[in-house]
Amino acid sequence: MKLQPKGIERVSLLNSLYRILASDIYAPIDYPPFDRSEVDGYAVKSSQVSWASEISPVVLKVNGEIRVGEKPALTCLNGALRISTGAMIPRDCDAVVMEEYTESKSGSVKVYRPITPGENIATAGSDISAGDLVLVTGTLIRHEHIALLAGLGFSEIPVYVKPRIAVFSTGSEVLSPGEQLREGCIYDVNGYLVTSYLRELGAETFFLGRLPDNYNDVRDAVFKALSEYDVVITSGGTSAGVSDVVYRVFGDLGEIIVHGLKTKPGKPTVIAISRDNKLLIGLPGFPLSCYMILIRVIKPLISKLTGLRIYEEKVYVKLPFTIRKHVGRTWLLPSILVESEEGYTAYPVSLSSGSIYSIVYSEGFIELSEDLDVVEENTLIPFYPFREVSKTKLVVIGSNDPLLEDLLKATGLIYVSKILNTGSTSGWHAVVRGEADIAPTHLLDPSTNTYNTPFLDKYNLRGRAVIIRGFERLIGLIVAKGNPKNIHGIEDLLRSDVRIVNRTRGSGIRVFLDLNLKKYAEERGLEWSKLIESIRGYTYEVKTHTAVALAVKQGRADVGLAVGYVAKLYDLDFIPLKWEEYDFLIPRNRLEKEIVKDFLKSLRNIELLKSVARFPEYYRFPSDIGQIKAE
Amino acid sequence: MKLQPKGIERVSLLNSLYRILASDIYAPIDYPPFDRSEVDGYAVKSSQVSWASEISPVVLKVNGEIRVGEKPALTCLNGALRISTGAMIPRDCDAVVMEEYTESKSGSVKVYRPITPGENIATAGSDISAGDLVLVTGTLIRHEHIALLAGLGFSEIPVYVKPRIAVFSTGSEVLSPGEQLREGCIYDVNGYLVTSYLRELGAETFFLGRLPDNYNDVRDAVFKALSEYDVVITSGGTSAGVSDVVYRVFGDLGEIIVHGLKTKPGKPTVIAISRDNKLLIGLPGFPLSCYMILIRVIKPLISKLTGLRIYEEKVYVKLPFTIRKHVGRTWLLPSILVESEEGYTAYPVSLSSGSIYSIVYSEGFIELSEDLDVVEENTLIPFYPFREVSKTKLVVIGSNDPLLEDLLKATGLIYVSKILNTGSTSGWHAVVRGEADIAPTHLLDPSTNTYNTPFLDKYNLRGRAVIIRGFERLIGLIVAKGNPKNIHGIEDLLRSDVRIVNRTRGSGIRVFLDLNLKKYAEERGLEWSKLIESIRGYTYEVKTHTAVALAVKQGRADVGLAVGYVAKLYDLDFIPLKWEEYDFLIPRNRLEKEIVKDFLKSLRNIELLKSVARFPEYYRFPSDIGQIKAE
Repeated sequence: MKLQPKGIERVSLLNSLYRILASDIYAPIDYPPFDRSEVDGYAVKSSQVSWASEISPVVLKVNGEIRVGEKPALTCLNGALRISTGAMIPRDCDAVVMEEYTESKSGSVKVYRPITPGENIATAGSDISAGDLVLVTGTLIRHEHIALLAGLGFSEIPVYVKPRIAVFSTGSEVLSPGEQLREGCIYDVNGYLVTSYLRELGAETFFLGRLPDNYNDVRDAVFKALSEYDVVITSGGTSAGVSDVVYRVFGDLGEIIVHGLKTKPGKPTVIAISRDNKLLIGLPGFPLSCYMILIRVIKPLISKLTGLRIYEEKVYVKLPFTIRKHVGRTWLLPSILVESEEGYTAYPVSLSSGSIYSIVYSEGFIELSEDLDVVEENTLIPFYPFREVSKTKLVVIGSNDPLLEDLLKATGLIYVSKILNTGSTSGWHAVVRGEADIAPTHLLDPSTNTYNTPFLDKYNLRGRAVIIRGFERLIGLIVAKGNPKNIHGIEDLLRSDVRIVNRTRGSGIRVFLDLNLKKYAEERGLEWSKLIESIRGYTYEVKTHTAVALAVKQGRADVGLAVGYVAKLYDLDFIPLKWEEYDFLIPRNRLEKEIVKDFLKSLRNIELLKSVARFPEYYRFPSDIGQIKAE
Repeated sequence: MKLQPKGIERVSLLNSLYRILASDIYAPIDYPPFDRSEVDGYAVKSSQVSWASEISPVVLKVNGEIRVGEKPALTCLNGALRISTGAMIPRDCDAVVMEEYTESKSGSVKVYRPITPGENIATAGSDISAGDLVLVTGTLIRHEHIALLAGLGFSEIPVYVKPRIAVFSTGSEVLSPGEQLREGCIYDVNGYLVTSYLRELGAETFFLGRLPDNYNDVRDAVFKALSEYDVVITSGGTSAGVSDVVYRVFGDLGEIIVHGLKTKPGKPTVIAISRDNKLLIGLPGFPLSCYMILIRVIKPLISKLTGLRIYEEKVYVKLPFTIRKHVGRTWLLPSILVESEEGYTAYPVSLSSGSIYSIVYSEGFIELSEDLDVVEENTLIPFYPFREVSKTKLVVIGSNDPLLEDLLKATGLIYVSKILNTGSTSGWHAVVRGEADIAPTHLLDPSTNTYNTPFLDKYNLRGRAVIIRGFERLIGLIVAKGNPKNIHGIEDLLRSDVRIVNRTRGSGIRVFLDLNLKKYAEERGLEWSKLIESIRGYTYEVKTHTAVALAVKQGRADVGLAVGYVAKLYDLDFIPLKWEEYDFLIPRNRLEKEIVKDFLKSLRNIELLKSVARFPEYYRFPSDIGQIKAE
């Protein structure tokens, strides 16, 4: 039986709040969609105000005004155009002078400062390029995702259909809240806890009240619920009789797959699969026990049905004192977390096992595994939070790679990662500053013709950071299907009938391209600036490989450099150029971070990489992948 | 104008998920509501199995069985009663032997272990006593609160009526997602961001689309919305013309109270109050600017309307590099947090001000205040998160006091506090272990007749913890209105016609009572154990002062020791006995914790304490309150 969402539906964007996204989202357009001004001021050609200063301002004729929301019909000619924040830059301008450095006067403007090309302009796609992966399947949609999707033009999106869950409580001692309390009886806690918790997880949950106390009635109620719901959950009373009845009914209506967990608490847990493949779950009676099993066992199962991708919320915490337990059962102990300079310590809560106050007081539970007897003070042990805690976070800054994205998706790490595709060079800077946990890098050092390692010295990171061996990837030229422009090498990028799409400065691909162009210029005695001026599209920069492919696919460019993988992804032609070494620069003090360790573990799993890589022919996996390559 | 929720409505418990609680909740019943067994086994008199061992088990006659949900008609007499987990303990039993230490045989049971009185029994009210404060007004209701309220018998609860908010977007360049993209235009982000964010905050929010571009239409639309909604929000386009129109309309329909914030970004923010006291809000155009103002300015305003009590989610973080700014405006810089051994560092995000990717990438923003010019590397600066972060948490373990509860409520600290009313002694233990940030204590040392300070040596905490001077409070005897039993001093507690309610062992009040009783016994040459056996209700223990008062109020006891405050609260009579010194024990390394500093600051604010104390005649506030008294 495969646990998965029962379907996908499309909902309007504003109705998607708290739903689970049912597909990866790649940007369909550039953002911003056009070159726009970031300030109020005057659009000019930067070369015209090169000599402007406070003492001798340059005077330009104002040839008109560009408003936001309009396509500029005007050009600045050799003058200036008044422009508002957010308005589109006219074709012949390359910079905007801020209003405060100008003085306007009857049809002309005095400019008091020089300006560099591109200043105060956000170029099309500089924030997000069409083709960038922006959100992934399984994301719980929050306000920030809705904002992003709105900006990219999505009016509706696919989300998973919610599973329908029926919840019963059991137990002859259980009363409904609001009933008159009778001696020896207690109010139902579990029915309410399970129902509201599953609602928070995004399941449509219905509380159907208390089950009667005999086999036939329980069987009839569960059988009926099975016809209407995808999951049936009973939360046990504490009386042994009831849990026997539940067990027998589950066994008769389906196949028992779990009967009693080797955990303390958790023994009375029963899980079965009905004949029509629906989940039947029986939970322990004491509310706190019920809660722990709900978090540890049931939440991952239900999340498979809602489609919510969870990166296991487990944090490693210190035990404040020695605990002696019996071998043979795993102990789950409700605890609170206390933060200190040395990290989190989990204090097992000294409340009785029947406590309901502990449901609000404790923050989760620690797990002491089956095989342990004495667990010493200060041992690091896993802690499972009841509610959200600050997410463990992986900060990835540097080079972009589709396989890396796929690996982070497959492991779930992407749900707790911050990824900034700034190119390799910026990743190195981020490590120097201490900002990144991992900087993916494929920087070629021309003097040694080796990748990455020589930069440890250049950035003065010897001893402070390590280079982890990554994979090799094949890069080359991405061209339209059938290669209509007959492109075969980097020299073809210089042709006047060819328009290229470039990568952002600092990216490894860009460095590779510029090294080749420099060599070409030197060999022919050409001036570098003239050479690149002659390349159409050289300033058309995007941040990801998928964005390169999409630009070629949509005819916005004839050719671009990228990994072969994306050519396949977008059904384009590919001219291989070079196998690159794509490694991971990691600050030494981050190597011990749990989430970094998780990442390295997944990287060393070559089988996983192969299964994740949709086009493995464009990748090579060295046997020492995931190991330290240089330090 | 006072911003407050517009009303209170009662909803069924399961429908209260994500609503805001509209009253403080005091437990109406004890939990558990009766003495109950925590295990399966045999209920016995512990004295009967005092000599049981593996070698010579004690054999008891089994006189019957007690099932869960039943009031036991049986008594164990001099034998045993079979009992299930959760079942009610019969009157004449005082312990339960676990099944695994017994062997049953034709109507009798062999007991292989001795047992102490109370073992495996959860006494009535041991988890929560009737009268305990369990939840406070302004709490966002989550699954754990619903579970707690169910257990206490609540079938419905009061919640605040949701405010209704209308959201408009503005700007001639703005298109709705789904429309065909035109050159020079962008898709609306702000309308979607503001609407979904306010929905997450718990407001009923309606997105009414784009406002037309001229004064009359905007005025008509806003005027109409004002008649139907409690708040009207426009999120500005970037064009100056539109924000002028919005400003003029707001000014004509009400009174402008904020026009332009001295923040960067945030200048275009407009806030006005309409003639019928509704909020009008105009937000900046760039989505990221809009988002920061939403968090920093609008969220606290809207929370006053929803009733959600927020403890300002501000964390102090390090700046990773020096920033130079201009004096005169406060800078808000979108940032990501990176955690290291030395705490959080906030990295300002290097994305353009028009970026929408930064809405999902950045985690909040740092604030560099108006008066700063150069902010040096490693300066601690405030960070405001966009989404939840791990809540700063104050762990309070020890003595209970109603004024302390009121102070934590008034400051909002209660929403991020973990409070365990274990009594003073357990608070000292919690500080020794490192578990508590603050241990409220009023322990009297009989040999010196001084409070708290002598225990620093006893617990070996000199140099490791400090005692902060707290307040003095008047304790005494709480009796029914009119004092029908004519109780005037501790000696009256020994009368056979008087039933008392006691506090839990380790509480300061209990220590005080026992010291007095011991003195009484010594003076009269009485045996201690005989003396307390003669006190009716001596073993009836509760954890809070309010629980003592409620026990007297409901006639479950004739008298109890507590602070005078609760006598007033429950309209009972009070016989003053002693002014106590109620101080705060704090581990030295927690004094630098922001939230502990916040607490101490509030404690030093005597005006605040006086205004919070509903019956200030029962408290005294020394002039050095909040200062170190001993260390």
